Amino acid sequence: MEILNSRDDLEVVLWPEDRQAPREWLLENIKGSVAVIINSSEKVDAEFFDATGPELKTVSTVSVGFEHISKPIAASRSIRIGYTPSVLTDAVADTTILLLLLASRNGGPCVSLVQSGQWPQFNWSPFAFTGPQLSLSPACPFGSPTRTVGFIGFGRIAQAVLARLAGFGITHCLFTSNPNSKPRSDIEIDLQAKHRLLMVKHSDLDEIARESDFVIILAPGGADTHHIINESFLRKMKKTSILVNAARGTLVDSDALAKALKERWIFAAGLDVVEGEPNIGADHPLVKEEKCVILPHIGSATTEARVGMTVTAVRNALAVLDGGEMPAELSLE
Amino acid sequence: MEILNSRDDLEVVLWPEDRQAPREWLLENIKGSVAVIINSSEKVDAEFFDATGPELKTVSTVSVGFEHISKPIAASRSIRIGYTPSVLTDAVADTTILLLLLASRNGGPCVSLVQSGQWPQFNWSPFAFTGPQLSLSPACPFGSPTRTVGFIGFGRIAQAVLARLAGFGITHCLFTSNPNSKPRSDIEIDLQAKHRLLMVKHSDLDEIARESDFVIILAPGGADTHHIINESFLRKMKKTSILVNAARGTLVDSDALAKALKERWIFAAGLDVVEGEPNIGADHPLVKEEKCVILPHIGSATTEARVGMTVTAVRNALAVLDGGEMPAELSLE
Repeated sequence: MEILNSRDDLEVVLWPEDRQAPREWLLENIKGSVAVIINSSEKVDAEFFDATGPELKTVSTVSVGFEHISKPIAASRSIRIGYTPSVLTDAVADTTILLLLLASRNGGPCVSLVQSGQWPQFNWSPFAFTGPQLSLSPACPFGSPTRTVGFIGFGRIAQAVLARLAGFGITHCLFTSNPNSKPRSDIEIDLQAKHRLLMVKHSDLDEIARESDFVIILAPGGADTHHIINESFLRKMKKTSILVNAARGTLVDSDALAKALKERWIFAAGLDVVEGEPNIGADHPLVKEEKCVILPHIGSATTEARVGMTVTAVRNALAVLDGGEMPAELSLE
Repeated sequence: MEILNSRDDLEVVLWPEDRQAPREWLLENIKGSVAVIINSSEKVDAEFFDATGPELKTVSTVSVGFEHISKPIAASRSIRIGYTPSVLTDAVADTTILLLLLASRNGGPCVSLVQSGQWPQFNWSPFAFTGPQLSLSPACPFGSPTRTVGFIGFGRIAQAVLARLAGFGITHCLFTSNPNSKPRSDIEIDLQAKHRLLMVKHSDLDEIARESDFVIILAPGGADTHHIINESFLRKMKKTSILVNAARGTLVDSDALAKALKERWIFAAGLDVVEGEPNIGADHPLVKEEKCVILPHIGSATTEARVGMTVTAVRNALAVLDGGEMPAELSLE
């Protein structure tokens, strides 16, 4: 707001409440605007563009995702789109580690036990609430001598997660990335050396499912990745393995995952996103699974990241108005 | 059990249920034993020793803590005590990171929101559920350019936590350790270089309270450290700071911490231990604080660590019976 308010040449129309604006308010107030700054709750579709006028030059979203924006319509009207990658990388990487630890250590039931006042009645036993250990433990030679993490998607955020996992003693990293991207043997060698791992290897879904102790989903949503984690994938996973989704809910078949947890094909799952969110009630099959811990899409919810996202979104919009280069422009090809 | 059952020269008496044995069963069945293997729920006091006979040579506890064992009585009767340090170091270090992330990222309320079916009604807003970011974010230059972690106690577990935090980009480390231990400037230089930090420094409680973004308690319990975190310490802490206790509940004055959270002297707290546990009900002042997330003392609850602890405890007991050196003997001086 400080940046926007310093611009005397602009009239700023602001939805004044700290909750989502009603659609009617939005459609009414974007009329005649040159730039619109929104978040991922707003559908930027034909209705949206029709409600604006010929003055519109740019739509700037406060998000790294852009599933809510119709790229073809934006392209056909020559509207430039800004988004906010990078600034949320570390916040989401932190959330991914939180989910790994929450899921592997029975975090959901543990938090609930104390919160509901049941700790005094809890019957302690040596293996109560135990789960697979995220970190490799040189001081405790009683488990596997390796830890393998498998990444579905291996962009900025996944690599930031790997940097954190190195401190936990992870030994092997498998990843699969966009089939259209270039071969990355340089990245493999660099990351293996940098993090002192035994292996960093481009792999496929089959090997990732079979070999990983921890599978981490950090790929984009959309049709290409829809239900990429399905019954077939889950049946191949280790019984002691953990699945984490910090990307988009659409990548995971929720019914298949609920079945996998109920029948113990895998140990547990940690999700920051669920297909159909936020309409995920207490009767959702994944909410009912004790070994599934779910956060309400807080991946980027740190003060630093959210300030960074809003400032970037403002700078994106102003760059278009000033005829400059946007800090982060979405390709519409 | 495999190790014990392979010994034809020993009669093994086993409490057969996966919950704590009643005290009467324990006192009845330790009569005449040469070694007793117990966990930290059992008081090893005059009553305990009186119930055994002159044959007793060793008590082996499946724990790193030994507050439940009367060292003076054991020493006066020449009973050797075994315990299980080291094997749980990495499990507790992982739990510490879980608590840091849970507390700073509003993990308790987030888990509860989804679990209770309230996600669909949740009013998303840009700063909902945001908290201070654990990791330093080079990609997002909108927060502090440093992260300072302060350790109360700086033994094996604290140093294992520091190794993990290095992957999150922590820059400064302050610590205070047992005043009776030797100066450790060698450790300071080694750790600073190893983890590429800007500073690792022996400090005092006052500086740790004032300078730390994250204060982590990993010191032993007992009279020396009772309520070392009190109102005076908490009042000096940063408003955005996080307090984590993964050691013993007695180190923190619960009423002072509840007041600090209610009046927002600090941002949040994550506790694996609470004074008076497990008698911590829903009306406990810390359970009632939304910014306090509590786990039911699961620090070492990984399969690897608990197997390691039980195997070490068995080896400790057998070493005494076989006249050898115990893998981990408690000093009774």
